[in-house]
Amino acid sequence: MHTTQNFPEEELKPLLEKYREFVKQELFPIDLKVVTGPFRSYLSQLESLRSKAKTLGLFAPHLPKNEGGVGLNLVQFAQVSEILGQSPIGHYVFNCNAPDIGNMELLHLFGSDAQKETWLKPLQEGIIRSCFAMTEPEHAGSNPITMSTTAVREGDLYRINGHKWFTTAADGANFTIVMAVTNPEAESPYQRASMIIVPLDNPGYKFIRNIPIMGESGEDYLSHAEVRFENCLVPVSNLIGSEGQGFTLAQERLGPGRIHHCMRWIGICERVFDLMCKRAISRELDFGKPLAEKQTIQNWIAESRAEIKASRLMVLDTADKMQNLGAKAVREDISTIKFFVADVLMKVIDRAIQVHGALGITDDTILSFWYRHERGARIYDGPDEVHKSALARSILKNYQTNE
Amino acid sequence: MHTTQNFPEEELKPLLEKYREFVKQELFPIDLKVVTGPFRSYLSQLESLRSKAKTLGLFAPHLPKNEGGVGLNLVQFAQVSEILGQSPIGHYVFNCNAPDIGNMELLHLFGSDAQKETWLKPLQEGIIRSCFAMTEPEHAGSNPITMSTTAVREGDLYRINGHKWFTTAADGANFTIVMAVTNPEAESPYQRASMIIVPLDNPGYKFIRNIPIMGESGEDYLSHAEVRFENCLVPVSNLIGSEGQGFTLAQERLGPGRIHHCMRWIGICERVFDLMCKRAISRELDFGKPLAEKQTIQNWIAESRAEIKASRLMVLDTADKMQNLGAKAVREDISTIKFFVADVLMKVIDRAIQVHGALGITDDTILSFWYRHERGARIYDGPDEVHKSALARSILKNYQTNE
Amino acid sequence: MHTTQNFPEEELKPLLEKYREFVKQELFPIDLKVVTGPFRSYLSQLESLRSKAKTLGLFAPHLPKNEGGVGLNLVQFAQVSEILGQSPIGHYVFNCNAPDIGNMELLHLFGSDAQKETWLKPLQEGIIRSCFAMTEPEHAGSNPITMSTTAVREGDLYRINGHKWFTTAADGANFTIVMAVTNPEAESPYQRASMIIVPLDNPGYKFIRNIPIMGESGEDYLSHAEVRFENCLVPVSNLIGSEGQGFTLAQERLGPGRIHHCMRWIGICERVFDLMCKRAISRELDFGKPLAEKQTIQNWIAESRAEIKASRLMVLDTADKMQNLGAKAVREDISTIKFFVADVLMKVIDRAIQVHGALGITDDTILSFWYRHERGARIYDGPDEVHKSALARSILKNYQTNE
Amino acid sequence: MHTTQNFPEEELKPLLEKYREFVKQELFPIDLKVVTGPFRSYLSQLESLRSKAKTLGLFAPHLPKNEGGVGLNLVQFAQVSEILGQSPIGHYVFNCNAPDIGNMELLHLFGSDAQKETWLKPLQEGIIRSCFAMTEPEHAGSNPITMSTTAVREGDLYRINGHKWFTTAADGANFTIVMAVTNPEAESPYQRASMIIVPLDNPGYKFIRNIPIMGESGEDYLSHAEVRFENCLVPVSNLIGSEGQGFTLAQERLGPGRIHHCMRWIGICERVFDLMCKRAISRELDFGKPLAEKQTIQNWIAESRAEIKASRLMVLDTADKMQNLGAKAVREDISTIKFFVADVLMKVIDRAIQVHGALGITDDTILSFWYRHERGARIYDGPDEVHKSALARSILKNYQTNE
Repeated sequence: MHTTQNFPEEELKPLLEKYREFVKQELFPIDLKVVTGPFRSYLSQLESLRSKAKTLGLFAPHLPKNEGGVGLNLVQFAQVSEILGQSPIGHYVFNCNAPDIGNMELLHLFGSDAQKETWLKPLQEGIIRSCFAMTEPEHAGSNPITMSTTAVREGDLYRINGHKWFTTAADGANFTIVMAVTNPEAESPYQRASMIIVPLDNPGYKFIRNIPIMGESGEDYLSHAEVRFENCLVPVSNLIGSEGQGFTLAQERLGPGRIHHCMRWIGICERVFDLMCKRAISRELDFGKPLAEKQTIQNWIAESRAEIKASRLMVLDTADKMQNLGAKAVREDISTIKFFVADVLMKVIDRAIQVHGALGITDDTILSFWYRHERGARIYDGPDEVHKSALARSILKNYQTNE
Repeated sequence: MHTTQNFPEEELKPLLEKYREFVKQELFPIDLKVVTGPFRSYLSQLESLRSKAKTLGLFAPHLPKNEGGVGLNLVQFAQVSEILGQSPIGHYVFNCNAPDIGNMELLHLFGSDAQKETWLKPLQEGIIRSCFAMTEPEHAGSNPITMSTTAVREGDLYRINGHKWFTTAADGANFTIVMAVTNPEAESPYQRASMIIVPLDNPGYKFIRNIPIMGESGEDYLSHAEVRFENCLVPVSNLIGSEGQGFTLAQERLGPGRIHHCMRWIGICERVFDLMCKRAISRELDFGKPLAEKQTIQNWIAESRAEIKASRLMVLDTADKMQNLGAKAVREDISTIKFFVADVLMKVIDRAIQVHGALGITDDTILSFWYRHERGARIYDGPDEVHKSALARSILKNYQTNE
Repeated sequence: MHTTQNFPEEELKPLLEKYREFVKQELFPIDLKVVTGPFRSYLSQLESLRSKAKTLGLFAPHLPKNEGGVGLNLVQFAQVSEILGQSPIGHYVFNCNAPDIGNMELLHLFGSDAQKETWLKPLQEGIIRSCFAMTEPEHAGSNPITMSTTAVREGDLYRINGHKWFTTAADGANFTIVMAVTNPEAESPYQRASMIIVPLDNPGYKFIRNIPIMGESGEDYLSHAEVRFENCLVPVSNLIGSEGQGFTLAQERLGPGRIHHCMRWIGICERVFDLMCKRAISRELDFGKPLAEKQTIQNWIAESRAEIKASRLMVLDTADKMQNLGAKAVREDISTIKFFVADVLMKVIDRAIQVHGALGITDDTILSFWYRHERGARIYDGPDEVHKSALARSILKNYQTNE
Repeated sequence: MHTTQNFPEEELKPLLEKYREFVKQELFPIDLKVVTGPFRSYLSQLESLRSKAKTLGLFAPHLPKNEGGVGLNLVQFAQVSEILGQSPIGHYVFNCNAPDIGNMELLHLFGSDAQKETWLKPLQEGIIRSCFAMTEPEHAGSNPITMSTTAVREGDLYRINGHKWFTTAADGANFTIVMAVTNPEAESPYQRASMIIVPLDNPGYKFIRNIPIMGESGEDYLSHAEVRFENCLVPVSNLIGSEGQGFTLAQERLGPGRIHHCMRWIGICERVFDLMCKRAISRELDFGKPLAEKQTIQNWIAESRAEIKASRLMVLDTADKMQNLGAKAVREDISTIKFFVADVLMKVIDRAIQVHGALGITDDTILSFWYRHERGARIYDGPDEVHKSALARSILKNYQTNE
């Protein structure tokens, strides 16, 4: 077992408290309304909150101080991420929301100077938004090496053709990073695709629709688009890294991305757990006894608390290990937390809904939003089944070589 | 163990086949669009389908032939109900949808001649719709004896005041049956409430909103309203049965109602199971192998098939017993199927979504609709927990007296 | 869905009542002692009970009347089997215990006249016992076509060599039926093995040990042996059916065998359920409240009741279908009940133990015996995983041909 | 969330490696035989192993160096405990087995000098064994305040009368600590009982039987006795602490005790997990493919790995917190790990058995021993249900005061 640092470090505590306070005072009172939408009608209000976050020195917790951020390391940010995750608009307000945060990490590590100047800088400042076009409706998303989108080089240009969906937050974004096959002849399927930046005002980019998901198409940041690239021409300088490196970069992008997701899910769990407890003590059954006296409810509260605690310890342990030993060292851990925490998330939400009774299925609480929009947690970034198989095969490999 | 009749009887088979054909040919191609809505824009199309159903002699399967129906008994209707349940508009088109079917049963059994003429007849013909106002936001719905709505007698009138929600399909309905306390002083809490008919053009009836549920407020038949009764005056002749009989009548209404729900859920399971299998064989993973070759998928298919089969046998057994021995004899059975089948329903839907991957959470298939709108199945008509406790206490009672 | 007959038929009720009375009065008071053993010390007492069963006309319920039995059909016997299953010595006393019942069925259907006279007759009369040597330690039992034991023909003899285990009840038996490869060159692996009768006083038969299982080696009928065949010579006339038919016969043998097991498991469930309820109302917690008032206990009672009911309906439905349509028609149903009921069995036993607290893990109740010796239910006659895959593949086959 | 230290500290690693080596080389080859018994026939062999452990400086890891131990703190010992737990004789060989370790802790903290000299010293040296008589068959063990055993003061003596069971390892022990009511009139039920030392050669102490548990009565250290105290007279100086302090001391004893158990269970999980993986890659199915390629097996391996990891992080976190903040601070954490880890333990064992097929239910592997003898883990030291309710009520208390 790898080392787990003290969480939180003494010096981090006041900062965490500030985030906690902000989320509770500024976000909890409005977030249900914001996600009920229409989202665009709240853009200016969210903009003010971002300003306030900047003023308080809380904006962009993941960015280095000299790039306008708070300068937290991965483990520290993970703890902030849990707090922000308690509100569905938390990460957005602090400019550390997916998919932008992943794109920032990517451009920070692999972007050219020009790319950084043009795309990364305004992204970090929260002036523009971005998206990431990888998944294709025709292929299993869990297998990003099978891909029909192509980028054919023609002189100084790439000609991109393809069909993507679940391009999260494309609506209103300024650019996308697209995964496209540039080297179909490469021997390894892992070396065929590349990542290319496409500004969304490019005439070859076609926005088809915000996919209706669980009853809502959403809009702007809160949406997942289906898009097409039809003879979309972009300069070769829009390539990130080198040709054929797309899959490798995607892995880099997904590693910390899964930690961010997991900590956000734990944040959701805590908010939901809190609602469950409040409901349990306030809802009266017969004879004035609160729901909280029912043993079934107590079981759910106890099991949820245990599972949330286990989740947090595992994710922080993974973050710490990744920070100290690098992404390769935590491949098994990442798979582990991905399926374990997603499962806990859905169980805790489901119990909270049941405790709320009829109220739980209405949109009068935040529970229904997460019940619907986090069902995807067991699917996106690799479904449970893929992560379980990957983990098991990795474990069993040691047995085979030891034989 | 009670007897289970042969299902289906030989002579029923051709009729079931007709329903199956109708649902497959007429409803499957449009039902996703209809529930995506707006529902009202499909009213005329649905009206045509009702006419077609009448022409084919399939309309109102639960009603006696001399009242315009097909004249099926409970067990026969249960089997039809499973077929109709495969489409979310199935019961509506055949005029045997909740809450109307419950109201029809109620008025048929306990309505006065005048009530039958005024309300039951047009309801049976599908000319008007109705609703049922029982649940109150301030009280646990699982405990219908605690109720704040009152109906105070003033001469030949009742003055009704109260606040209700989850008054399903109130939007567009012509009348509601409201549960209200008429006899607050009755010793037994089970003898305090009454059922009273309120036409919805009554000025004392206030429609507040269609409650947003799982991302959708819906409209017309596909909605659940919050309503108020403010000094709502109705003639005493609108009372169903006698004063204080409300709870007893509600029990009568809920018994077969739960069988209808359970068979409808099994219908949903079958549709969802079918989609899951189709997806499993058509979705290709790496190397051209279909998803169906993965053992996890096979497990889900096998477990779902087993659970659906168990559900059907239990519900038909209960229906048969109720038909032969009456509602009292099946109290335990009703509780059993209520929580057992609701659980199976949610598990099967959840597996089917996971098999569909990202597609499963979109509204491009019917899965998301049921995932959202049937989450309530574990809550409405008594949450799982209440039915489990009731069943256990009933079983244990025999032990105590035998000691 | 296939038809399910009325259970029980009116005319069967008095007979079932007799079995119920016998099991309760004669077996319940002694069965825990008998299985605690040593089993042989109870042989004469068990012999008296068999005589009593004969006198009452209850002996060998599965055999035709003209062969000394009660003459029940499969569905009727299934219902008797549930009653006998409530005691771990029930089937033994009535001479319808595995593996003898399977061997009786086999010899009845496929034995030569001489085999019937020599082996079947005394088996039916309960004068001798038998066993069945199929599983080999070196090969997965779930795949009976892979087999190392050989029977090489030498003139009028077979020379048998091989290693078997889980030869249930070999200790004290008079003969075994052994599965051995006679036709290694057959194209289909399903046509290589044959079934051959071996008297256990044959010098080539070596009894190695009663395998210690879950803490007990057991003895006599209550044991599972490891045995060897070392140049074991038997006359060719000991072959059952024809050469290469072994696998086909095994399938014939296993079909009804699984129904017998499932009904026996349901019997266990009922006994265990009864113990759980009795404990729940009699065990006092703090303040004189019985355990039964705890909602968790109530949940377990309710869930167990539902699952047992579902199990019974499915098994009887399968038995009825097999009786009317033959073994091939119920292949999917057999797989379904095998994994479904085995799972229910283990869950119900586990809950009952938990309700009993420390007492539940002692051998002072029958619970521990079943917890240990029925863990195999999820393994023998095909583990859960094999049956689930088989069922799913069979279901999916219809989809592929329909495409 | 409380801090979690680095595990293991750099300087602890070589020591852990030594324990690991010892357990693997010395214990794994013999432990199955030892627990199969008869245990007494292995006493001298175990004695040699204890000597070896002393020589290597590994004996009594939990004791201070000046008392002959290794001087590890709670967190360090927890990590050793996991290693020892991989063998069912691990803790015994290193003299840190329950119930002796609990009695050592108790006497160390609360024993008089004379008690320490007479009982603690030889216990620490491994010269004698002890036991702990608390649970009574007539009262729920989860509620130690209800107790019928009495100790009536008569001059300088206590006269003890009572009936106890699950007095673990009484067979062969030199003394027991008995919980008995000394102050029946005390207002609080938590202040009525006391702990008193009783030498087992006292004529008033009656050994009734080693309770047969899951098929085995066991003997010596591997046993759980039923005993009686019949006018058993002991000097007042045998009282530990003061009168009425019994319950408080029991709580002190149980706190670390539950951490010891949990870490031991994790050790079991690791051994079992290892066996499961080895079986998965070595067992061939059809066509030479190993079991490990089946996705169901992979799921079990992945889920087990995740759950074991979660368990370890939670228990070490709890140990660390207890070490730094005391027992009161971790009351919720102790309840959490108790039910969480016990559940993981049983699930991992169950999966490993299923992976082993028929072999898994034999006593040819260690799996069956743990399947049987750790079923109690969900019961002893408070059943799951009690811990869940306690945890939930403790959490909900904060909500009530905050309202």
